[in-house]
Amino acid sequence: MNINTTLVIGGAGYIGAHLVPQLLATGRQVTVLGRRTHPLHELPPDTVYVAGDFSQRDLIGRLLDTHEEVIHLAYATVPNTSFENPLADLLQNLPPTEELFSEVAVRGRKLLLVSSGGTVYGEANNLPIREDHPTKPISPYGVTKLTLENYAYLYAVTHGLKYICVRPGNAYGMGQQPFVGQGFVSTAIASVLRRQPIKIFGQTGTVRDYIYVSDLASGIVSALDRGRLSETYNIGSGIGRSNTDIIQALIPLMQEIGVNVQMEHLPERAFDVKSNILDSTKLFEHTGWRPVHEFDEGLRCTLEWLRQLLNE
Amino acid sequence: MNINTTLVIGGAGYIGAHLVPQLLATGRQVTVLGRRTHPLHELPPDTVYVAGDFSQRDLIGRLLDTHEEVIHLAYATVPNTSFENPLADLLQNLPPTEELFSEVAVRGRKLLLVSSGGTVYGEANNLPIREDHPTKPISPYGVTKLTLENYAYLYAVTHGLKYICVRPGNAYGMGQQPFVGQGFVSTAIASVLRRQPIKIFGQTGTVRDYIYVSDLASGIVSALDRGRLSETYNIGSGIGRSNTDIIQALIPLMQEIGVNVQMEHLPERAFDVKSNILDSTKLFEHTGWRPVHEFDEGLRCTLEWLRQLLNE
Repeated sequence: MNINTTLVIGGAGYIGAHLVPQLLATGRQVTVLGRRTHPLHELPPDTVYVAGDFSQRDLIGRLLDTHEEVIHLAYATVPNTSFENPLADLLQNLPPTEELFSEVAVRGRKLLLVSSGGTVYGEANNLPIREDHPTKPISPYGVTKLTLENYAYLYAVTHGLKYICVRPGNAYGMGQQPFVGQGFVSTAIASVLRRQPIKIFGQTGTVRDYIYVSDLASGIVSALDRGRLSETYNIGSGIGRSNTDIIQALIPLMQEIGVNVQMEHLPERAFDVKSNILDSTKLFEHTGWRPVHEFDEGLRCTLEWLRQLLNE
Repeated sequence: MNINTTLVIGGAGYIGAHLVPQLLATGRQVTVLGRRTHPLHELPPDTVYVAGDFSQRDLIGRLLDTHEEVIHLAYATVPNTSFENPLADLLQNLPPTEELFSEVAVRGRKLLLVSSGGTVYGEANNLPIREDHPTKPISPYGVTKLTLENYAYLYAVTHGLKYICVRPGNAYGMGQQPFVGQGFVSTAIASVLRRQPIKIFGQTGTVRDYIYVSDLASGIVSALDRGRLSETYNIGSGIGRSNTDIIQALIPLMQEIGVNVQMEHLPERAFDVKSNILDSTKLFEHTGWRPVHEFDEGLRCTLEWLRQLLNE
């Protein structure tokens, strides 16, 4: 069997922690590129760690020389912070990623581009959202993610770039830091554990497609292994949950440990898409992938992990 | 009657030469921003000329203070040259235009964004192309134009930007310089006048929607005056013409002046969209605009103008 060498850019983070073991399990050799001098979490044995930024073109070029595949998880911004400085979001993400495409294409490598199912579509015309739904993002993050999709397609047509694109829903689960401007589930649980009210924008909050992070990781591996070149795949649960739905699911878990759940309602935000639910039929049909984690089970694992993290 | 003050960024060029008189005819006061110290062509009386680049944010800000509307015609690249350096295309166009949107929005001004009906759609699934056709550009120019459309929509939702977007077909006509990497009609006529063969990529060349430049200008004014905010409008003739169609139309005109038409066939280019024909029904329905120039008439005018320009 041919052993693939896989470079995971931004693989030392939360999604990488679930993705790298799954890649290793397929027999791959994995190198993780991360921005810190040393990874924050211990990487699995046999994983090579390289410290650096994906904007270092020379470094990327040298790494691509010895790797057959790249998974691009790194991004300089998250949806909420991108509003503060749309120009920085543009300048920090677009030029280096476009250069990455060029370097991957020239070497004939294969790229798995991680886009954003939660932001590229904007307000949905109909739910769940299929990949051919119009794309009208209402966050700078969504605009730059969509632009990178367009560049990847361009490089496929003009430079033979071999790529597959995935559009994940809202990942949640073990390892997701709370209070970092994204990740409602972690922040909600951590708020309760700290006896703070869960902040909700509007009466029930937004509806999102929450996918357990290891299901997202298996979706990425499926797309990389069996997805078709130049295709784009949603990766979601297909189920929409409002913020209050999540809180309803949290209440019995918190009762078990004797903690009260409180909410604080804030005004709705104009830039929040009301509902985002992804139809992942295409990924299933092309690769056989399905999510396997029940939401309540994922929620319990996340709670246990956060209790350890916060010593609560 | 209220007199509008209109800033035309990039208005000293070929399209501006047709657009500015039409704007003046509606009673507007017009300021043209151009990159040269002095405009290449004489501007109509009562037009104010300001030398500068649209990337000068301070200058743009000061001009916006005293103008109610902006028409954004400037672009640092053209489709063909954008391939040579996609990164430059990105860096020269996206950041300054995104800043323009921000400055327009903060002052509550109105923006007419000139996008590109010839490039944003990519290969057409069906013809003629309506505005809701999927957008899969295959040139860097098309990607950045589409990205700017997405930023404009984003700024409308998040910052109240008042804008209207137009997607023109291939403008041709009097004033279009030959041999500059775009504008098949001008380059074809000038080639014949210089006794050079007309270069065609493939057997019949590409099919494009050629629109006479003053029809494009009237489409821009119609969209600005009666188009709906946040809407996007194709501006085309609705008729597809291949390169050989144009040459067939040229032959009798050239016979009149005793010049032979010769062709040179080059290999097809992978990055050329085969056919692009725009459905402009939406602009007609919203504003009543229609093109009025017959193709043969436009061709004759262009020929006369090029004979003068080239002293042939």
